[in-house]
Amino acid sequence: MYNFAAGPAVLPAEVIKQVQQELTSYQKSGMSILEISHRSSLFTDLQAAAENDLRRLMRIPTDYDVLFLQGGATLQFTMTALNLAKKSGKIAFVDTGHWSQRAIQEAKLLPKVVPEIIASGKENHFTAIPKVPKITADYDYVHLTVNNTIEGTMYHQLPAALNNQTIVADMSSIILGYDYQVTDFDLIYAGAQKNIGPAGLTVVILKHALLSGIPTLPAMLSYPKQVKKHSALNTPPVFAIYTAGLVFKWLLKQGGVSAMQQQNEIKAQLLYNEIANSSLYRSPVAVADRSLTNIPFVTGSDQLDAEFVADAQAAGLMNLKGHRLVGGMRASLYNAMPLAGVKRLVEFMQQFEMNHGGSRK
Amino acid sequence: MYNFAAGPAVLPAEVIKQVQQELTSYQKSGMSILEISHRSSLFTDLQAAAENDLRRLMRIPTDYDVLFLQGGATLQFTMTALNLAKKSGKIAFVDTGHWSQRAIQEAKLLPKVVPEIIASGKENHFTAIPKVPKITADYDYVHLTVNNTIEGTMYHQLPAALNNQTIVADMSSIILGYDYQVTDFDLIYAGAQKNIGPAGLTVVILKHALLSGIPTLPAMLSYPKQVKKHSALNTPPVFAIYTAGLVFKWLLKQGGVSAMQQQNEIKAQLLYNEIANSSLYRSPVAVADRSLTNIPFVTGSDQLDAEFVADAQAAGLMNLKGHRLVGGMRASLYNAMPLAGVKRLVEFMQQFEMNHGGSRK
Repeated sequence: MYNFAAGPAVLPAEVIKQVQQELTSYQKSGMSILEISHRSSLFTDLQAAAENDLRRLMRIPTDYDVLFLQGGATLQFTMTALNLAKKSGKIAFVDTGHWSQRAIQEAKLLPKVVPEIIASGKENHFTAIPKVPKITADYDYVHLTVNNTIEGTMYHQLPAALNNQTIVADMSSIILGYDYQVTDFDLIYAGAQKNIGPAGLTVVILKHALLSGIPTLPAMLSYPKQVKKHSALNTPPVFAIYTAGLVFKWLLKQGGVSAMQQQNEIKAQLLYNEIANSSLYRSPVAVADRSLTNIPFVTGSDQLDAEFVADAQAAGLMNLKGHRLVGGMRASLYNAMPLAGVKRLVEFMQQFEMNHGGSRK
Repeated sequence: MYNFAAGPAVLPAEVIKQVQQELTSYQKSGMSILEISHRSSLFTDLQAAAENDLRRLMRIPTDYDVLFLQGGATLQFTMTALNLAKKSGKIAFVDTGHWSQRAIQEAKLLPKVVPEIIASGKENHFTAIPKVPKITADYDYVHLTVNNTIEGTMYHQLPAALNNQTIVADMSSIILGYDYQVTDFDLIYAGAQKNIGPAGLTVVILKHALLSGIPTLPAMLSYPKQVKKHSALNTPPVFAIYTAGLVFKWLLKQGGVSAMQQQNEIKAQLLYNEIANSSLYRSPVAVADRSLTNIPFVTGSDQLDAEFVADAQAAGLMNLKGHRLVGGMRASLYNAMPLAGVKRLVEFMQQFEMNHGGSRK
């Protein structure tokens, strides 16, 4: 079977096998990875290796820190604003859909923080990334949702208007899947449960220079305090970091992020082509802004969509139901989804179309 | 070998085996527990079962909510104060050592929150639980660290002076190991990585009536919002909740918390007796306040302590080094530590004492 869920999502089968094999005794210690102390070298070594491998994969320069935190992107909505809206208090948001809006809502709840929407895809029902106008006001930073998991859009490149701005990016559903330049961003955050590892881990990559001038905050919410303690000011999520580390090693073996991007482009193109060639399926998303990792499509009939999802599931193609906010279908094609899975999906789509009287274009 | 770490700590071997066995296909779904959606019934069923089992184990009444969160006890230091210091803003702390003090420090960082220490064990170097005087001021709540992981003290019963107070308790290192009455508390929190499951999960049990009058807070920091969404307002730590659920089932099979307490008393007594009968080892802790789960002891010589820890490790008795703040040794005897492990430790202690010229009392 193939799991097209948007997250938690499919992981490399090799990684799951390795976790299974060494679960009762990590590194011949006689202890499970679930039992080892976060102060032991067993853990600090694996955390350092995970960080180093992530740095290699994303070419993260030494003037950026890497954090392994908890709380998901939703806690980052709060942490980014608490830590970084430190001068004017004004944050510029590009509203590209549900997760941008959640980030805006959370920023609004903080005193002295003023979120402003500088561009929105609302008029187009978020089927395209909006144009970003020249920025004139004095924002502490600009917030982007780089890939929109629900709407199926992504930035293929950053808007020119954002040159010289401090950019904070939610990269949850595309991190390690598309070869963005870390140096184009000042802070990147991502929930692990899509392209990194199991749920319960959040990766934050931030420019060291950002840390100056941040007010004193509760320890768990403070980037400077978390950086100072290398993400271990209390017990970190050991197992999730360990599994993410195995995924990083798997990615290096596959050739790294540029190789994954190439694979992801092939997989996505296969599905987008099938949609284009079909008289039954339609992608609501503007061609130029289509996501590589989250691909929504519809038949135009809610009833037929539901039938598609149920029949697909019966055929071993799992979790193809679109998010309740947009309906239809969604196939999430993260790094760990093999090409064979997409081929199987395309075959199923063709069969389903034939069974429902569709004629190929 | 036996793992005496204070946390992350030993888990039941049966639980680890079950995790291993079903890691590649959870409930014959063809998907790993690491890959299943938190919106699928596979997950919501297991979360509901985990909650029900915890309710049975701790006899949690229906007017209490149960949350499965992230961020550890340290984030609870902040969340409890943010949510519950809502009228006078004053919090009464009983200072019983390091983790009480961390809770106080975090509360101090919040605007409008005034932490006051109403009793402290500082004079006695935290080797005893201090007497709590009659409370006259108007506190929003009283905060207790029920078991002190580093200093090795615990409340065997709650101070009478706290009757009718709102009580918030950090139960991280004793939850499910001693049969406290949930109804004696208004909110209980515990990091999972000692007596519940793997690191990366925090259990919160709170009286539903506490939720009224809480200000609007960022979603991840708000008890009312977390309760409303059943701990799933974003992706919860699926694997940690799953493993905790298996530990709960294991505990029910062992006879529940009162059976575990009985076992823990036998294990602790074995070690305390050995210390009492020895001319080499000494417990710094007042007899009446000794912890069942974290047992520090010293030889009186730093060099001999270090030798003890190294020799013990060579003999397969792992992680007996005391916390750097107090030195010496510490044996953590959580629920998953078998009696055989404590017997082995006691034998080793006797041998070590003989080898170092000790004469039995």
